[in-house]
Amino acid sequence: MSVMPEINPKLDLVLERVVDVKPELVWRAWTEPEHVMKWFTPKPWETVECEIDLRPGGLFRTTMRSPEGEVQPASNGCFLEVVPNRRLVFTDALGPGYRPNDSSFMTAYVLLEPEGAGTKYTAIAVHSNEEQRQQHEEMGFYQGWGTALDQLVEYAKTL
Amino acid sequence: MSVMPEINPKLDLVLERVVDVKPELVWRAWTEPEHVMKWFTPKPWETVECEIDLRPGGLFRTTMRSPEGEVQPASNGCFLEVVPNRRLVFTDALGPGYRPNDSSFMTAYVLLEPEGAGTKYTAIAVHSNEEQRQQHEEMGFYQGWGTALDQLVEYAKTL
Repeated sequence: MSVMPEINPKLDLVLERVVDVKPELVWRAWTEPEHVMKWFTPKPWETVECEIDLRPGGLFRTTMRSPEGEVQPASNGCFLEVVPNRRLVFTDALGPGYRPNDSSFMTAYVLLEPEGAGTKYTAIAVHSNEEQRQQHEEMGFYQGWGTALDQLVEYAKTL
Repeated sequence: MSVMPEINPKLDLVLERVVDVKPELVWRAWTEPEHVMKWFTPKPWETVECEIDLRPGGLFRTTMRSPEGEVQPASNGCFLEVVPNRRLVFTDALGPGYRPNDSSFMTAYVLLEPEGAGTKYTAIAVHSNEEQRQQHEEMGFYQGWGTALDQLVEYAKTL
């Protein structure tokens, strides 16, 4: 029985949209590194590396490059739940093998449900405190995750 | 396919023993609050509260009381893997619903394998850095977890 986060508007950010690709394609776009690199980072930023060990406790790491060519140091995250075509949960509070990281920012839920010929897509970012939620919103959560989702949908249609 | 931590002697602490109670009883002692309270804290410390929501992402919290009667504030941890009679993984880096905590200390693996009429018991404490491992060793990991295991075995035989 899966645990859902008790969403707390002071701590959490939620993006919910219906998109016109099936859950199976959204899942592939989210879980295969060569696909993730195509859409994960809103342009003109780029994802230049992606490592995925798709199982609970397995590594999830992406490396981004700014438009100026500066590579951002990647943090080692890990997957917490992997339910194909339905549910992906990961965090940067833990690295591979669930080893705690020295600092953390969020746990993310990506939830997929079939809706018509498409997918009801829900992304939830769960933070430990209001400052981190605020920081994430100011970093552009809604626009950033929304733009990335647009990129995902456009790319997934080519799969 | 379960992920095992890559044990790093600089970061991790391991307690391995064979005990003469079956995995099923060790499991009950670890996962039912009324039992946990009987053995979890080396005497003369006591566990005065225990909350368990036994599923990945579910709450694990214990509250301890010192011999002088001082109650230690409990941190909200959560379970990461729950494989009955075999494997329990939890962390204090995340609370219920996998919400990151502001600080973390460790992830713990409790691994049980049948061995003869008893159990091969392996506890692994996984830390993010050498200071936390060192601190845990100085807090008495080997003696503390060893004494707690003695208490568990003695108590489990009464179940």
